[in-house]
Amino acid sequence: MLCVGLDTDYSKIPEFIKSGRSVAEAVLEFNCRIIDATAPHCVAFKPNLAFYEYLGKEGMEVLDKTVTHIRNNHPGQFIIADAKRGDIGNTARMYAKSYFETFDFDAVTLSPYMGSETVTPFLEYPGHYAIVVALSSNPTSSDFQNALNGGKPLYQSVMEKMMEISSPENMMFVVGATKADKFKEIRTFCPDNFLLVPGVGAQGGSAEEVIAGGSNSKGGLLINSSRGIIYASDGEDFADAAAAAAITTANCIAF
Amino acid sequence: MLCVGLDTDYSKIPEFIKSGRSVAEAVLEFNCRIIDATAPHCVAFKPNLAFYEYLGKEGMEVLDKTVTHIRNNHPGQFIIADAKRGDIGNTARMYAKSYFETFDFDAVTLSPYMGSETVTPFLEYPGHYAIVVALSSNPTSSDFQNALNGGKPLYQSVMEKMMEISSPENMMFVVGATKADKFKEIRTFCPDNFLLVPGVGAQGGSAEEVIAGGSNSKGGLLINSSRGIIYASDGEDFADAAAAAAITTANCIAF
Repeated sequence: MLCVGLDTDYSKIPEFIKSGRSVAEAVLEFNCRIIDATAPHCVAFKPNLAFYEYLGKEGMEVLDKTVTHIRNNHPGQFIIADAKRGDIGNTARMYAKSYFETFDFDAVTLSPYMGSETVTPFLEYPGHYAIVVALSSNPTSSDFQNALNGGKPLYQSVMEKMMEISSPENMMFVVGATKADKFKEIRTFCPDNFLLVPGVGAQGGSAEEVIAGGSNSKGGLLINSSRGIIYASDGEDFADAAAAAAITTANCIAF
Repeated sequence: MLCVGLDTDYSKIPEFIKSGRSVAEAVLEFNCRIIDATAPHCVAFKPNLAFYEYLGKEGMEVLDKTVTHIRNNHPGQFIIADAKRGDIGNTARMYAKSYFETFDFDAVTLSPYMGSETVTPFLEYPGHYAIVVALSSNPTSSDFQNALNGGKPLYQSVMEKMMEISSPENMMFVVGATKADKFKEIRTFCPDNFLLVPGVGAQGGSAEEVIAGGSNSKGGLLINSSRGIIYASDGEDFADAAAAAAITTANCIAF
């Protein structure tokens, strides 16, 4: 159930990987070593697009090569573009083309603020998933996500609206591990969809609580850890340390 | 007050521009000709990032060259990255770096679903603007934007929360032209910030109604038109036709 987030920050890459390599080359080398070390212990990888965009065109090349590396060497892995995109229909269509045609992702995270049409174009790709942010794990998630829409919390309203236009075979939701008390409630109105759960590790969420409330008969959870795994060590042992952290996390979330 | 949106769709570029050029080269050539033709009649350009991302690394190069072309040849223009990004703080920081350092944008559109921390890093760049989506112009905007947060409509709650952490010198809001009846109400709690107004033209919004309700003593409005201007003709006269459409639109919104 473990997803390894590739939020690769150049400033945190070990010096010996940086040595003799351009920024883009170092990020790619770091990613490939982390992927090869952790793939036996996870089911998904999630590159965070912000960490590639700031490298401009080289960043897009690193992103593409990272996805291709996973696809070619670890063919069972599920690959998520952590993009949090959300725009009107004709723009959403171009984003869907970006992640599902130009790049070879299986799924993309989306932000629901502009309504259901921001998601529709992503549902037209068989075998691919839209992953809509419902209840996020960050400190300011409660600024707006608990507003009342038709008498229900906004995150519930978002999930119900998206469930109307999709199926559990093309729609997942982001629900943060820091909201562990909400998982049982969420499973009453959303029993079947997979939930992508960030916030375990660096953000402080408890895996045990998430599993107790959020799992279903199919598992139903994809638990992401990024910083806690990929930066487990900044020395020459970083890949082994990442593998060890992935094993520890995977054991915590096995059930 | 006119902003020209560069949502450049390769399938709508005139054939004579495509001839002998790669996709990326054709998009860049089209952009440069549209920019040079319309710059005398507008104050801002707004590339829509979705229309560049799907071209992969070449798309990032076209985006960079488009921004550089505006900066070098039309130095008074305000350049907006239409990105609708919105993510947790450490990711938002990387997005800010992307648009304000890697690329030379003046402003970026942001989606507020994940709360105020998604915006904070963008406010740390003097002379730059965060433009937060409050009330959008698309058909499904009312799915969630009218939810009640502390008894107020969500779009109002978003604007008030963002105004707490910013000033009119680094924060604007997106308010769609298709919500013309809301502008007067919005000006009661947000008198000073500029509003970026999409939805005039292709989406059916009325410029006159927007101006009547939304303008303030400084103007206070940046009215965007994309498809109505850049695709005014698909013939050899496309740049002249775009200039004519820009003049018509600029005259409509002059006051």
